[in-house]
Amino acid sequence: MNEMSAARAAFEARLRRIGEERYHDRHPFHALLHSGGCTIDQVRAWVVNRYYYQCRIPMKDAAFMSRVEDPALRRAWRSRIEDHDGSEAREGGIARWLKLAEAVGLDPEYVASAKGVLPATRFAVDAYVRFVRDEPLLKAVASSLTELFAPKIHAERIAGLLEHYEFATSETISYFRHRLNEAPKDVQFGLTWVLDHAVTPADQDAAAAALTFKTDVLWAQLDALYSAYIAPGNIPPGAWRPGEGLAP
Amino acid sequence: MNEMSAARAAFEARLRRIGEERYHDRHPFHALLHSGGCTIDQVRAWVVNRYYYQCRIPMKDAAFMSRVEDPALRRAWRSRIEDHDGSEAREGGIARWLKLAEAVGLDPEYVASAKGVLPATRFAVDAYVRFVRDEPLLKAVASSLTELFAPKIHAERIAGLLEHYEFATSETISYFRHRLNEAPKDVQFGLTWVLDHAVTPADQDAAAAALTFKTDVLWAQLDALYSAYIAPGNIPPGAWRPGEGLAP
Repeated sequence: MNEMSAARAAFEARLRRIGEERYHDRHPFHALLHSGGCTIDQVRAWVVNRYYYQCRIPMKDAAFMSRVEDPALRRAWRSRIEDHDGSEAREGGIARWLKLAEAVGLDPEYVASAKGVLPATRFAVDAYVRFVRDEPLLKAVASSLTELFAPKIHAERIAGLLEHYEFATSETISYFRHRLNEAPKDVQFGLTWVLDHAVTPADQDAAAAALTFKTDVLWAQLDALYSAYIAPGNIPPGAWRPGEGLAP
Repeated sequence: MNEMSAARAAFEARLRRIGEERYHDRHPFHALLHSGGCTIDQVRAWVVNRYYYQCRIPMKDAAFMSRVEDPALRRAWRSRIEDHDGSEAREGGIARWLKLAEAVGLDPEYVASAKGVLPATRFAVDAYVRFVRDEPLLKAVASSLTELFAPKIHAERIAGLLEHYEFATSETISYFRHRLNEAPKDVQFGLTWVLDHAVTPADQDAAAAALTFKTDVLWAQLDALYSAYIAPGNIPPGAWRPGEGLAP
């Protein structure tokens, strides 16, 4: 291995270590969810709040594309929006998430209204969209690399939900199965792009900081969820409460 | 016709009048271009500068989508980006414009670099992208309605170029033929959206102002082109000069 490819490998390892140490698969909420320890209301709270993250992702990706001068890079990125928004021929991730909402007994229109989302969730997600809109492209791409760590959590989630919850069928949790296929192609592109473009130590630090920031965005959402609906269970004013937003 | 549909029709007529009075088909540059009065260098100057507008359009549309919360509206808008950027299966408008560049003897790489673009062109186009990113959605959509007036100018241009210039063939000017098909579907959607959403006088004024602004953006580009390359012919420092950026 020559010096340059060794440096590249070391940088990739550094990025992967951020995931090992900070990705939200380590958050206690996920252990609870995947082991069947959540009540249906706790699952509902998760579905309501995680929707806000999902529905902002295509806006985040459009914000990214609005700053990209290279048509080839825009073309490569465009499929992310299609994966979430869908097309006439193909359902997208947002529609699949609303199926999950229906399966857990929520009114999909209520969930899609994003009423009842925890303020802390909004703050975290909005910070991510702003980050991608305002920071240099390298940091914007690097912040997407949490997808590197997503296949493992999606596989655990599919198995855990199917085993422990009555609402879970391959149809109702199809969102996660699709992400298992979509995320790897996106992240391979993003990882290669970051490795190609972050060559100086300063750029590598910036990319690592961006990925760290993104793990904070994901973690903060689960902290807020845990605090409101698990322990200590203090639901803030205006946030979803059990019994609200149920399917008619 | 009831009162509401009369008001709607009057508002649509007001928007169309803006085009009749201010759209850049009335600019003397277009009369010159379409009648065969341009030298090849003047055509090249137009191709170099107009490229900057083309290449910013998908960034403008992504900026719009980054602010749209409704997946259905994003889906309807997405095809604009595809039309310009193309896909693996289908060439886009930017690639077609670079074909035109090649046909007039320019190096497509030079044109794609956007070196030599007139500063006034950059200022006008960048103002448009910022407008769509920062102003309310209604104004952003209304500013796209210059497409209402585009089919006429495209038809005139196709006929004029084919009649008067050796470089023009149905292949080299395919950009305009495609826009003849693409623009009407986009603008019908945009017009309906604006008519649906601009109901109060204040909103109608805002939409009319946005469309007026956009006609200014287009007109200013041609004024700069005319000033630099036709009369008085003062090319500003750093801008493209005849002989530069030619195909090798």
